[in-house]
Amino acid sequence: MQKLVVMYPPQPDMDAFKAYYVGTHIPLARKIPGLQALRYSFEVETLAGDARYACIFEAEFEDGAALGKGMGSPEGQAVAADVPNFAKNPPSLIHYRVDK
Amino acid sequence: MQKLVVMYPPQPDMDAFKAYYVGTHIPLARKIPGLQALRYSFEVETLAGDARYACIFEAEFEDGAALGKGMGSPEGQAVAADVPNFAKNPPSLIHYRVDK
Repeated sequence: MQKLVVMYPPQPDMDAFKAYYVGTHIPLARKIPGLQALRYSFEVETLAGDARYACIFEAEFEDGAALGKGMGSPEGQAVAADVPNFAKNPPSLIHYRVDK
Repeated sequence: MQKLVVMYPPQPDMDAFKAYYVGTHIPLARKIPGLQALRYSFEVETLAGDARYACIFEAEFEDGAALGKGMGSPEGQAVAADVPNFAKNPPSLIHYRVDK
C-alpha cells in the first residue's frame, strides 16, 4: 500500500479553511482514480517535537504506480490545483510504502 | 479511531537506525496495551513542502482514552524511553482522531 499524507500548518482563518476543505476540496479528492481510502482530521495534537499541524489528510493507493497515476490524472491535478484556493499557508505532502 | 504518528528526520547512520528500529524498538512497541494496528516505513518521499522524514510510524487505538492509557502504561513508557537509544535526531509525535 502506498500512502499519501498531506499536512497543513495552522491557517489564519481556520473556520473558512475547514468549510472549504470539507465542502469543496474533499469532494474533489474523492474523485481521484485509484483512491482506496481517505481520512482527514482537524484535531491534531503534538506530543513531542517541532511538527505543528492543523489538518492531516491521508489517502491510500494500491502501490506507488497507482498513486502516480491517480495524482497525474485530470482529477488528481484538479485536487492539487485547488490547494492554493484555501490554504494560505501551504501544506507538506509526503508519500510512503507500508504493508497493509 | 485515534492515530499516533511518529515522524523521524534523517539520522546520521541510517543503517544502524533501521537495524535497531526493526530489531528492538518495534518489538517493544507491539507490546503497548490497546494497540490495534502498527505500520512503519523507511521509504518516505516528499512531494511538496518542508517536511523531510526518513521514517514514519503509525499506530491505531480505539480512541484518545485508549491512546493515553497505552502510552502511559509501563510498556508505553518503555517505548518512549527507548527512542533516544537510536534516534540521534529526535522525532516529532502527533496524534489525531479520524473516522475508521
